[in-house]
Amino acid sequence: MTALITGLRTCDVRFPTSRELDGSDAMNPDPDYSAAYAVIETDADDGLEGHGFAFTIGRGNDVQVAAIRALEPFVVGRQLGEVLDDLGSVWRELVHDSQLRWLGPEKGVAHMAIGAVINALWDLKAKRAGKPLWQLLAELSPEQIVDLVDFRYLTDALTREEALDILRGAEPGRAERTAELLRDGYPAYTTSPGWLGYSDEKLRRLCREAVDRGFPLLKLKVGADLDDDVRRMRIAREEVGPDVRIAVDANQRWDVSTAISWICELAPFGLWWVEEPTSPDDVLGHATIASAVAPVRVATGEHVANRVVFKQFLQAKALSFLQLDAARVAGVNENLAILLLAAKFGVPVCPHAGGVGLCELVQHLAMFDFVAVSGSTDGRVVEYVDHLHEHFVDPVVIRDGHYQAPRRPGFSAQLRPEALREHSYPDGPVWAGG
Amino acid sequence: MTALITGLRTCDVRFPTSRELDGSDAMNPDPDYSAAYAVIETDADDGLEGHGFAFTIGRGNDVQVAAIRALEPFVVGRQLGEVLDDLGSVWRELVHDSQLRWLGPEKGVAHMAIGAVINALWDLKAKRAGKPLWQLLAELSPEQIVDLVDFRYLTDALTREEALDILRGAEPGRAERTAELLRDGYPAYTTSPGWLGYSDEKLRRLCREAVDRGFPLLKLKVGADLDDDVRRMRIAREEVGPDVRIAVDANQRWDVSTAISWICELAPFGLWWVEEPTSPDDVLGHATIASAVAPVRVATGEHVANRVVFKQFLQAKALSFLQLDAARVAGVNENLAILLLAAKFGVPVCPHAGGVGLCELVQHLAMFDFVAVSGSTDGRVVEYVDHLHEHFVDPVVIRDGHYQAPRRPGFSAQLRPEALREHSYPDGPVWAGG
Repeated sequence: MTALITGLRTCDVRFPTSRELDGSDAMNPDPDYSAAYAVIETDADDGLEGHGFAFTIGRGNDVQVAAIRALEPFVVGRQLGEVLDDLGSVWRELVHDSQLRWLGPEKGVAHMAIGAVINALWDLKAKRAGKPLWQLLAELSPEQIVDLVDFRYLTDALTREEALDILRGAEPGRAERTAELLRDGYPAYTTSPGWLGYSDEKLRRLCREAVDRGFPLLKLKVGADLDDDVRRMRIAREEVGPDVRIAVDANQRWDVSTAISWICELAPFGLWWVEEPTSPDDVLGHATIASAVAPVRVATGEHVANRVVFKQFLQAKALSFLQLDAARVAGVNENLAILLLAAKFGVPVCPHAGGVGLCELVQHLAMFDFVAVSGSTDGRVVEYVDHLHEHFVDPVVIRDGHYQAPRRPGFSAQLRPEALREHSYPDGPVWAGG
Repeated sequence: MTALITGLRTCDVRFPTSRELDGSDAMNPDPDYSAAYAVIETDADDGLEGHGFAFTIGRGNDVQVAAIRALEPFVVGRQLGEVLDDLGSVWRELVHDSQLRWLGPEKGVAHMAIGAVINALWDLKAKRAGKPLWQLLAELSPEQIVDLVDFRYLTDALTREEALDILRGAEPGRAERTAELLRDGYPAYTTSPGWLGYSDEKLRRLCREAVDRGFPLLKLKVGADLDDDVRRMRIAREEVGPDVRIAVDANQRWDVSTAISWICELAPFGLWWVEEPTSPDDVLGHATIASAVAPVRVATGEHVANRVVFKQFLQAKALSFLQLDAARVAGVNENLAILLLAAKFGVPVCPHAGGVGLCELVQHLAMFDFVAVSGSTDGRVVEYVDHLHEHFVDPVVIRDGHYQAPRRPGFSAQLRPEALREHSYPDGPVWAGG
């Protein structure tokens, strides 16, 4: 019997994080971290499922679930082996469907839905292979990796041959770096101290704790009030001393000229990077800001819609740190393209995480990058926020400021059954009782 | 009694256009033109409703409807007069909602849903004022118009003061241009001859008919096969003679280098513009193409996600004709911003139309631009495709290659009740019987 994909189960899961002001920033004062959750079911006798999700911050998570449901005809009823053996083709079918692509193209709700399904398929593929996703990817040949990437719209910046060269160049050290990763983990930084909703005292305490826990970089949210930001920067710098790096994150709050003047006010406290200074669509605006605020460096990516926009950020020298997100673009395949673009341009990738489950996902991509693409952790850190990990079957493990390499098979994407049940919206006990 | 908005009714309406290959191009071989349709209901005693829609091409129209439904809490229950008197604030509330904006931000399904609701509110406002929308807008003061525009992320290219200057500069001739418009209409061009699914004989006949009907420009779809395109260009040029302009539309089919070489093959036949040569997100790619294929000019816009991306196309000199779409961005307010940006950069706006209802909507924006913004029809034409107009209460009227100015109150967005009923998906007779 050939196994088939028999179902695409979805769930609207929301965590009431706005009740605690965790995650508050200048643009997102009251997020309820949410997952439009997708489960791939099969009739294989291994009992395995593929789990994936799109991340949202509350309202509209139902629309995101509807967009995932619209993909059911593309996967359900198909032969499992054929699908998992050629995820490059599956990605193209989903992204380039002639009718669905009108809803983006390649952006927003429709694109994130594809990301959830693609990531769920990768979770299942890795589970069936008995490997964590980072390792499964890092053991593919350069040819297998580029077959997963769609080079449409990229060839003026990165061709298939150039991508192969990058991957072949990184092949010799794979085993050594895998051992290093399993021993030391991958560097992390923390955003936990810096939310706008926190008091100065809490900021001070959390900064000290971050240093004690070994994080080499911490990040503050800024952009609501300049005087507050100057005061909070001063507090943070006092607490961490001159050697720990401090980044700031404006969450798209500013226009170009405001960004430049605001950043210049904070620069004397020592800024490692300034993140999302303006609209994530504004490549040219970021380039103007980057050139004006140098040597402060610009970082962005969590809201960058797709690989074509990242290509332009790199071409225009509009960012110095590329912050890919595991659930914003169309899943693993598109992030492979983005990692290869970053490598081509020599820009370090420092993935966005936090929310719910984003740390769990993105660690795999960073670790794959280290082993098989960039071959380096220089200037590279993965964001870490200490929220909601307890709800996952295979939560991230941080030790001495490093993500420890996952060893369980899969993409670490799976929520515990009771977490799904309790936070189901609007009927789960967390919401129905509220 | 103060009137309230009492309901937001939605409908999934699809026309089976794929059965006839109308609308087939290199990226969209089999569209079913569809509307995610929104109706604003009130308890006012005038019996008026506001109609609007997002346009899609079939699959996923249900997701688009779900996104419109998610906006119900933002409008239903509110005082009608307050909403209609301050649509600038309503636009900001919808677009900048701190949770919903994660779904874009400002792009794709979520943004088009806002466009449908905003356009429905404008339809209702114009009906209550007893005026066609173009005229209602063209009679606003410059201050009232800029109050409708959100300048966030635009101020490095266009400030409120600069927009006011543009509008004040166009004030003196408003009455004269309104009279001209009511007398002559607004220039149109036709895409009807050029769909890829048509035979050479049909192309030949439709080209002749287009010239006979007075269109100064016609457009061919290209990008599937170069030899076919050369042959079809030759046929079209033979039929229309040297004076009628021919544009070509690749519907995003090419990478940058392919676009350049393909366009150079077609250029000897005389190209007025090349439309959508590559990804609509690729500002820098378009700029490279534009500079390489000059004097052939680049046009794009129907898939440009928002005003921030248009701003960059203008800054980068990546387009010579700006093809705004009435239902892709967040409705009338955002298109006011786009018209003002185009005026600032001196770029003619040649709106995208076709599909279902897009001609009906966009004529109002072009006519408003003529009367109150650019003050000119030089180099400007509105796309016209002769499909599906019979389903509208107030369909467009074309005479001597010109859109005749609508005189009925509203935004011409309203589908006939029987059209809604028959094409309702999946239960209407057109679909249930198929």
